[in-house]
Amino acid sequence: MKVGIVGATGYAGQELVRLIIQHPKAELAWITSNTYKGKDYHRCYGNYTKIYEATCLEQDLEKLCQEVDVIFLATPHGLSSSLINKDLLDTVKIIDLSADFRLKDKEDYKNWYNQEHTNPSLLKDAVYGLCELNREQVKKAQLIANPGCYPTASILGVYPLLKEQLIDHQSILIDAKSGVSGAGRAPRLGTHYNEVNESTKAYGIGTHRHTAEIEEQYSYACDEKTIINFTPHLVPMHRGILATAYATLKENYSYDDIKAIYNQYYSQEKFVRVLDKDYFPETRWVKGSNYCDIGFKIDERTNRIVVVSAIDNLIKGAAGQAVQNLNILYDLEEDLGLEQIPVFM
Amino acid sequence: MKVGIVGATGYAGQELVRLIIQHPKAELAWITSNTYKGKDYHRCYGNYTKIYEATCLEQDLEKLCQEVDVIFLATPHGLSSSLINKDLLDTVKIIDLSADFRLKDKEDYKNWYNQEHTNPSLLKDAVYGLCELNREQVKKAQLIANPGCYPTASILGVYPLLKEQLIDHQSILIDAKSGVSGAGRAPRLGTHYNEVNESTKAYGIGTHRHTAEIEEQYSYACDEKTIINFTPHLVPMHRGILATAYATLKENYSYDDIKAIYNQYYSQEKFVRVLDKDYFPETRWVKGSNYCDIGFKIDERTNRIVVVSAIDNLIKGAAGQAVQNLNILYDLEEDLGLEQIPVFM
Amino acid sequence: MKVGIVGATGYAGQELVRLIIQHPKAELAWITSNTYKGKDYHRCYGNYTKIYEATCLEQDLEKLCQEVDVIFLATPHGLSSSLINKDLLDTVKIIDLSADFRLKDKEDYKNWYNQEHTNPSLLKDAVYGLCELNREQVKKAQLIANPGCYPTASILGVYPLLKEQLIDHQSILIDAKSGVSGAGRAPRLGTHYNEVNESTKAYGIGTHRHTAEIEEQYSYACDEKTIINFTPHLVPMHRGILATAYATLKENYSYDDIKAIYNQYYSQEKFVRVLDKDYFPETRWVKGSNYCDIGFKIDERTNRIVVVSAIDNLIKGAAGQAVQNLNILYDLEEDLGLEQIPVFM
Amino acid sequence: MKVGIVGATGYAGQELVRLIIQHPKAELAWITSNTYKGKDYHRCYGNYTKIYEATCLEQDLEKLCQEVDVIFLATPHGLSSSLINKDLLDTVKIIDLSADFRLKDKEDYKNWYNQEHTNPSLLKDAVYGLCELNREQVKKAQLIANPGCYPTASILGVYPLLKEQLIDHQSILIDAKSGVSGAGRAPRLGTHYNEVNESTKAYGIGTHRHTAEIEEQYSYACDEKTIINFTPHLVPMHRGILATAYATLKENYSYDDIKAIYNQYYSQEKFVRVLDKDYFPETRWVKGSNYCDIGFKIDERTNRIVVVSAIDNLIKGAAGQAVQNLNILYDLEEDLGLEQIPVFM
Repeated sequence: MKVGIVGATGYAGQELVRLIIQHPKAELAWITSNTYKGKDYHRCYGNYTKIYEATCLEQDLEKLCQEVDVIFLATPHGLSSSLINKDLLDTVKIIDLSADFRLKDKEDYKNWYNQEHTNPSLLKDAVYGLCELNREQVKKAQLIANPGCYPTASILGVYPLLKEQLIDHQSILIDAKSGVSGAGRAPRLGTHYNEVNESTKAYGIGTHRHTAEIEEQYSYACDEKTIINFTPHLVPMHRGILATAYATLKENYSYDDIKAIYNQYYSQEKFVRVLDKDYFPETRWVKGSNYCDIGFKIDERTNRIVVVSAIDNLIKGAAGQAVQNLNILYDLEEDLGLEQIPVFM
Repeated sequence: MKVGIVGATGYAGQELVRLIIQHPKAELAWITSNTYKGKDYHRCYGNYTKIYEATCLEQDLEKLCQEVDVIFLATPHGLSSSLINKDLLDTVKIIDLSADFRLKDKEDYKNWYNQEHTNPSLLKDAVYGLCELNREQVKKAQLIANPGCYPTASILGVYPLLKEQLIDHQSILIDAKSGVSGAGRAPRLGTHYNEVNESTKAYGIGTHRHTAEIEEQYSYACDEKTIINFTPHLVPMHRGILATAYATLKENYSYDDIKAIYNQYYSQEKFVRVLDKDYFPETRWVKGSNYCDIGFKIDERTNRIVVVSAIDNLIKGAAGQAVQNLNILYDLEEDLGLEQIPVFM
Repeated sequence: MKVGIVGATGYAGQELVRLIIQHPKAELAWITSNTYKGKDYHRCYGNYTKIYEATCLEQDLEKLCQEVDVIFLATPHGLSSSLINKDLLDTVKIIDLSADFRLKDKEDYKNWYNQEHTNPSLLKDAVYGLCELNREQVKKAQLIANPGCYPTASILGVYPLLKEQLIDHQSILIDAKSGVSGAGRAPRLGTHYNEVNESTKAYGIGTHRHTAEIEEQYSYACDEKTIINFTPHLVPMHRGILATAYATLKENYSYDDIKAIYNQYYSQEKFVRVLDKDYFPETRWVKGSNYCDIGFKIDERTNRIVVVSAIDNLIKGAAGQAVQNLNILYDLEEDLGLEQIPVFM
Repeated sequence: MKVGIVGATGYAGQELVRLIIQHPKAELAWITSNTYKGKDYHRCYGNYTKIYEATCLEQDLEKLCQEVDVIFLATPHGLSSSLINKDLLDTVKIIDLSADFRLKDKEDYKNWYNQEHTNPSLLKDAVYGLCELNREQVKKAQLIANPGCYPTASILGVYPLLKEQLIDHQSILIDAKSGVSGAGRAPRLGTHYNEVNESTKAYGIGTHRHTAEIEEQYSYACDEKTIINFTPHLVPMHRGILATAYATLKENYSYDDIKAIYNQYYSQEKFVRVLDKDYFPETRWVKGSNYCDIGFKIDERTNRIVVVSAIDNLIKGAAGQAVQNLNILYDLEEDLGLEQIPVFM
């Protein structure tokens, strides 16, 4: 199939370009960029020299949609919803990497994103594209809301526990650590090398927008309105999210009890690796790949479970999951174009 | 006064050497090192060329103690307790940076350190040298157990809340992030550049030895046996600990209520900086200094408080606090030799 | 074809494993490791969980060679030459990533490696596997000496200038910068995170062993005994070599003159990218790939040319070039299994 | 004495603030900032919380000069020369950290900085403040041109060789490596964490402005017009410059011959440390200090000498040397306020 990428010069967009070029069944028809329109791609990213030197186009979707079957939107929230309309969705399938169609309720969107949703009528048709959970809906979707990076790690890690009612849904805390690429390519003081390197900080405590996305999916899982504490941290590394989740177990489950549940949910999943006892994820072991690694520990002293999950925020947390959704949409092997072994350094 | 440093070639030892050399009232009489004995110090650490080129001695304390008033032990746990005895304590004051005299109960020591304490009779006399809490006892101490790095950040951050009974002591979780220097200078795969850089991981989940130290001090603070979840993480940076603490508030306190409590405890403390509303610590802002920065946020949706505290693990978390204890012992200005402004990069 | 990898748990060995697993025509029959023999591979490198969990075997080549067509030796110098013999070479083809068969003269080996060569009779048959220079000889080789990382960057950058007699061969200086992975996985103080990160140093000034390898190939190129200054530097990054070469031009050549020469040599080469005027290599643009990027500048004030070349030391400087040699040996497309787009971060 | 700092929120400005606050004889009367005027300093740099919370003023020097004895200009080139005039110089002494008064010839300035010098009449009176070379002139100066970072490392390393006519002045190449802080605090793509970290590149090959400054001082040293190759590189670290200089020796000097020359020039210098044979500088060993470390090697095979010098670009390469000049101006101990031991990590 033919695909186009809107916002190809951001970091998630660049990963999409890289994955699509190497995908055996997808052809990259065009790319657009607001920041670099008119510029050749290898002048934006020198790694593409002699590999992909196409010019970044202006984002005229009415015209560009005629040339493709699928459009990826790697655009900021707010922009995505303004670009999509019914006509466009009649012509192409859309995989939106922004946050615009992830929350079902436009009020939630308004509360967490501090702006009115410009296209609320489409919310009900959008499918939340967390592949391992919503595979069947994705197959039939016209508009896929590709999950956020923190939510992907947070939801995959805790989902079986909530679904199986093993934990108190009011007790969940997520303490997450992210690399710097999640903050995007636009230069700001907050991503300046000398301001980021060799330091760690918390940010958006209690207010990060991904909180709403995680809570909505948690609520679906346990069938109860779920409120959590979510605290993201910025760590001096390029890629990777490590989410450490804490929750109180409803009963005294053994390690093997819990492990069996995880296996039931994930042993058939190519991209979710539940680690053996006493092994825990490290972001390097999933780097450059679409894997989500999960490990857990039961703390018998407090009867809490600690679940650690790791993803590459740009792959499973963005471009890789988007390609996985593309594969599902087209009934391809789910790992087509995503077989990369993690690079680790 | 004259001081000697045992274990001067480890990272904490090196910081001690640096601070003591620059201390206006202390004189560095000798240094010892097991790994580098017989070697000149600037061959171990090139920064000391033309500054301090003394030879690392063998650790013969019986003899060396005659030349000094105070001995710093920057030695591994287990070794410290075997080096100290009554005779030595009659001759010199000892500031022990190891874990050997931090826990009051030898059973706790055995449980968490997997070995018998070799010198349990001294435990009751040792003073836990968290300066801001135990200043008065430190003044009269002969043996000071200098606190661990994680405990220093974790205790200073939460102490006022526990002492004033504002939080449920059974609800506390600490998710901590540390730089690599905490792992020491001995080369191991776990500190190899290519295995540590560009990655984040949790380790010692539910089993890290500092858990016991934090719990003991928390228990003293709230006068109830306190059990916590403590999860340390390794982050790719040299220095710094960021501890993110979570606890359930007993009532609906306002930000200002809590801020007033923190001010009551810390506004007179030189080395504890409680940040203004909506400001949170970053490890870079305390780097190279003896400060502990604290910020907090009340999450009204869950009625939990999130307290973030940051220290330089080698300074306030080790050598700096040791020097602060030295100053207290000798009734000097507490910040003597510790006036360094954080270097931030 | 079937291949085996000796020394699969070192960094170059790990890259070989990763490339071979993903190679469409090669099958990985076995791996060996001295350090980790008997251990499963994903316990040595967590990225291989659920991907490649084979056990590291002992290095019994007499037996193991029966199962494969090609053996890669990712072993230290000295060990490689002791493992190879005529019988083995009659059974399998060998691609040796060590330095043992790179220098033609056993006296050079002795002088630079401070040990006698244990297998000098094989030196004359070994082919120096710098693919772009020696493609024809590689095709017929039984024993391929895979080039060093610094030599690959240094030779590819300067070769056309020497071959075409454009520069004074006595004027060449190479100032090279390498990431830390070149130092291998064995933990040493020199690769400890806290000793390497945030610092840059020169090392092996005038004595680095790769000097001999570069000089030998330079001498072949210009047909005169060539002596150079070679100064490697260690830079705090995982991967990458940047070699900055300086030489005096014999005449006043224009940029276009020189560019035409480079194009003549490299425009048909998939893995050598000569950059446009005023563009210069950065190691990130080749990271994770088999490319060698080259840029140059003529300094008219001194009539010197400055040539900058960049490779990923573990790919084009080791495992990638080894696979490229494998492809040449088997008359496959030269980029089979090596199509990875550089990852840049 | 009282001092003011113009441009206090840039990286060099921040180091000046830090050093002046800790200086026993200097008092910081005011700071200015274009970017952050009206803002409190600890909101620009969180490390100053509870230490220095003064407000950044507008840069009205006519008025501000009345309150101080010395003004430091930590401003971009072009701006410094426009701020200085005779009246100002009659009132205060000025230490200018920009490039505006470093080159004696306004034509050189125009050629290398691509702009007319706005204040050429002051050029002849400005003293080039490389302390170890020009101490006597500095003592009497009203306007001090504080040297650039690359020039400080490059000149100190090679000066004795040129002055003593030991090397061919036409043979000099400088290959320098710098950390990122040299690029300043303004956010640009080129200093974005994800674009800088884990990569090395050359830049400004043959065109970097510091070339002129180095050449001018080299020419004074050997009394002949000297042209060099200067190639700076960007390395992923905060601080530090390592300059590797190459030159052809005029005769076959021994190591001891050369060492004796270096000792003659520098053995009395507090801030220049000539290392012992076979020891070479690393940027970490001077980090956070005003030291310049120098090591050298004679390559007998080519009869070239390789000189490696290291400084902290923000200290000896900027703010530290500025304070050293202040001390000289006021006839104080040259290391007053500059006794910091390098921090190394």
